[in-house]
Amino acid sequence: MTYCVGLLLNEGMVLLSDTRTNAGLDNISTYRKMFIFEEPGERIIAIMTAGSLSVTQTTIARLREAMEDPESTPETSILLAPTMLKVADIVGAMLAKVRSEVEEKLSAMNQLASASMIVAGQRKGGEMRMFLIYPEGNFIEATEDTPFLQIGEHKYGKPILDRVVKRTTSLADAQKAVLLSMDSTLRSNLSVGMPLDLLVIERDACKVDSKRRIEAGDESFRAMSEAWSLALRDGFTRITL
Amino acid sequence: MTYCVGLLLNEGMVLLSDTRTNAGLDNISTYRKMFIFEEPGERIIAIMTAGSLSVTQTTIARLREAMEDPESTPETSILLAPTMLKVADIVGAMLAKVRSEVEEKLSAMNQLASASMIVAGQRKGGEMRMFLIYPEGNFIEATEDTPFLQIGEHKYGKPILDRVVKRTTSLADAQKAVLLSMDSTLRSNLSVGMPLDLLVIERDACKVDSKRRIEAGDESFRAMSEAWSLALRDGFTRITL
Repeated sequence: MTYCVGLLLNEGMVLLSDTRTNAGLDNISTYRKMFIFEEPGERIIAIMTAGSLSVTQTTIARLREAMEDPESTPETSILLAPTMLKVADIVGAMLAKVRSEVEEKLSAMNQLASASMIVAGQRKGGEMRMFLIYPEGNFIEATEDTPFLQIGEHKYGKPILDRVVKRTTSLADAQKAVLLSMDSTLRSNLSVGMPLDLLVIERDACKVDSKRRIEAGDESFRAMSEAWSLALRDGFTRITL
Repeated sequence: MTYCVGLLLNEGMVLLSDTRTNAGLDNISTYRKMFIFEEPGERIIAIMTAGSLSVTQTTIARLREAMEDPESTPETSILLAPTMLKVADIVGAMLAKVRSEVEEKLSAMNQLASASMIVAGQRKGGEMRMFLIYPEGNFIEATEDTPFLQIGEHKYGKPILDRVVKRTTSLADAQKAVLLSMDSTLRSNLSVGMPLDLLVIERDACKVDSKRRIEAGDESFRAMSEAWSLALRDGFTRITL
């Protein structure tokens, strides 16, 4: 399982992903689920992945191949695509293609291989945009009303986002919000696990503002998690029925 | 969809269920999902249901028939069963039987009909016990380590329970906890809806201590929900990253 969340705010974008991958309960590994493609000042694209690792790895690898291909065009390379909408299109088409290839291989076993992605970014002169790409390649976009997108195990971490995240939330608060959302998920679902990858992109900078890997023993994450537990229990105590 | 939660505590038991039933998104109704069978001072049994309404209604109706049957035995009537374990057995067997009958009817349509239940109660002289009955009729029991059971849409409301509910939680705090757990669920999933049924059973009383239906406009529930939102936002503000 996986939990990835992306926030699209007035000040910029905040993305957070876990790294746990499992094939059954007894085969657990760490794989990066956040991929960054950047031409600083010109273009920044971040992709987060959830679902079958064979599908997501191959999709990302093929997207990379297309970028590095000297004959790549705005139709094939996300680094040349004229708009973020076109980027979402390219990623969606590749994801759907890879997924159907993998499912064909698995069809004899009656197994499915599904995957979804969050694609976020901005091109100089364009808008900051964030998309959730479905396994079939179609997608939806974060908006003013719903400024966050989630993939993977999204339910445990949604209540906190529903309550505190607005389009006007600051980037500092947004980082707190996604980390607390992840914290609730980590507590409830063993198949979501540390380390975490946290990315902040400021509006119109078209480059990584900060990128941080939070390891299992991270002191500030632990302190925040404990402070939040304390705040919840404290708030709980003060409420009267 | 549905959300039902039961807490098994040192002081007693607290049960909460919603009432929304839907067949598709455009056919929404209100049905009670909590059923109480009581011989005050002798025996109290509460059953909460989730899943296909045709399965849960028929299961409850057959259990009632068995209780009212003048020839009922400790093997067939949950009001005569010698232990709560036997009650769980009887409910589980009936649920599995009804489910398989209904699924047979649906098999031509390639549809499944599933349902699960929480069975909680105490018999004079016996222990207070709480079971989660699976669609196949097998069951698990709430324990010291895990003093709560949930059926239906359980994920949104689990983080708060994980954080505040212990076996030693008071009945007053337990009511707050389940209502806040429900509040998070109501906000995130439209297929869980008011009114709510809240039941409190004190240890060894073997009768209903309090039973309350909380309607959609309930002032105290609304106030609690708002106080909780405020406490969360307040706690969130005070945390530093």
